[in-house]
Amino acid sequence: MAAWARAVRGLLLDVSGVLYDSGGDGGVPIAGSVEAVRRIKASGLKLRFCTNETQATREKFVKKLQGMGFDISVAEVIAPAPAACHILKERGLRPHLLVHDDLVPEFAEIDKANPNCVVIGDAAANFTYANLNEAFRVLIGMEKPVLLSLGRGRYYKETDGLKLDVGAYMKALEYACDVQAEVVGKPAKKFFESALAEMGVLPHEAIMIGDDIVNDVGGAQQCGMRALQVRTGKYRPCDENHPDVKPDAYVNNLAEAVDIILQQM
Amino acid sequence: MAAWARAVRGLLLDVSGVLYDSGGDGGVPIAGSVEAVRRIKASGLKLRFCTNETQATREKFVKKLQGMGFDISVAEVIAPAPAACHILKERGLRPHLLVHDDLVPEFAEIDKANPNCVVIGDAAANFTYANLNEAFRVLIGMEKPVLLSLGRGRYYKETDGLKLDVGAYMKALEYACDVQAEVVGKPAKKFFESALAEMGVLPHEAIMIGDDIVNDVGGAQQCGMRALQVRTGKYRPCDENHPDVKPDAYVNNLAEAVDIILQQM
Repeated sequence: MAAWARAVRGLLLDVSGVLYDSGGDGGVPIAGSVEAVRRIKASGLKLRFCTNETQATREKFVKKLQGMGFDISVAEVIAPAPAACHILKERGLRPHLLVHDDLVPEFAEIDKANPNCVVIGDAAANFTYANLNEAFRVLIGMEKPVLLSLGRGRYYKETDGLKLDVGAYMKALEYACDVQAEVVGKPAKKFFESALAEMGVLPHEAIMIGDDIVNDVGGAQQCGMRALQVRTGKYRPCDENHPDVKPDAYVNNLAEAVDIILQQM
Repeated sequence: MAAWARAVRGLLLDVSGVLYDSGGDGGVPIAGSVEAVRRIKASGLKLRFCTNETQATREKFVKKLQGMGFDISVAEVIAPAPAACHILKERGLRPHLLVHDDLVPEFAEIDKANPNCVVIGDAAANFTYANLNEAFRVLIGMEKPVLLSLGRGRYYKETDGLKLDVGAYMKALEYACDVQAEVVGKPAKKFFESALAEMGVLPHEAIMIGDDIVNDVGGAQQCGMRALQVRTGKYRPCDENHPDVKPDAYVNNLAEAVDIILQQM
């Protein structure tokens, strides 16, 4: 019946728009998602939460989700900031940070003196004219500018309206310095691969479930994974006519996806 | 001797970096430039000043140059804001402005109610997180977003350091809204053509003199004009190895260019 649901050993879940809808300071669980996560865990399937969230540390993020009733721990969360820290250490990079205040603790153990790269995240209110000029000057002052971007989202919605996401500011710095940013987070292949490695699951054994047609679905498929788009969160009907990306299936929400997958086991 | 200087009927001069060096609130004339402008006028050559300046009205800009001793009038200045106003009127566009406070009077006669396009200039300190989000929301709310950008510069230098120019913010909005901005100002072909039309001079009869290898030299050459790069202003020795653009000649400064051109008349 649902060929896409066969022979699954691991699931990757996007968080915002799949588990909960964000808004204001908190968020509201999407109907059925709390129970769906519990059922995945009870099934024995491997599970990771794969988010591009960069406005808070994983600790704070997980606490928020636990507060909504989700069975989730920090060790199960794949997020851009820790992935960036891994790259920084590996390559001896010392970042100038243009990120949200609440994300800074993720970089506590990283040497930030005399920076030789810039890390940009969704800095929100920290995207001031002065901070952008400063990050630009650090970059343009390098012989070979290195720019790491925690995601490449265009925009997102908050209760008080749409906001430009990190991708827009990344493009501004890319253009000004004539460099190409290295994107850490979805849809970067390495990011998905690190999640698969942690689970000990091969790409063809895993399914990504997300609301973002490009960053979740397209990114996971590029890695050889199957990918579903939920019709919650930032999903829009026009996504179903996307010129480049076609999900392996659409589901109304996470609960429906889990129903189908567990039936096939 | 200087084949590039023959059969000239009109000159287009870039202003910042050719006539004067900007810095702080004022600027300093480049040696020989005040006299060079006088000699051009005395020669009977047609002349226009072709600038991407968008931090002040032409009136204010011209007053500053007159204060430095330049023989220049508002009617001789080709600048992006008036060119944008022309487009706005022609196409019935009502702009949401993201520009420098001092530029706003240039749009005094333009209907700005219920905007159906965004005009972005070098807004400098007006490039706040809130203002960028607001311009973005106006754009993304349109069925077919229209973005006019007053130039596409990457960055410029002020006494307190390098600053991101309008092009960087233009790229941010382009990416977020998946649109392509229409650039008004150099290097847009229409911009140079309007200057030629005002002078009543054909492209092959005109020479552009500027310090910007891409926006001045490349732009003018694309219109069929000859173009010189001065070794003043933002000129850097590495410009002489530019992969795409090769000026018809290099001159040390405006005075030298005018010497050679007038000798050929």
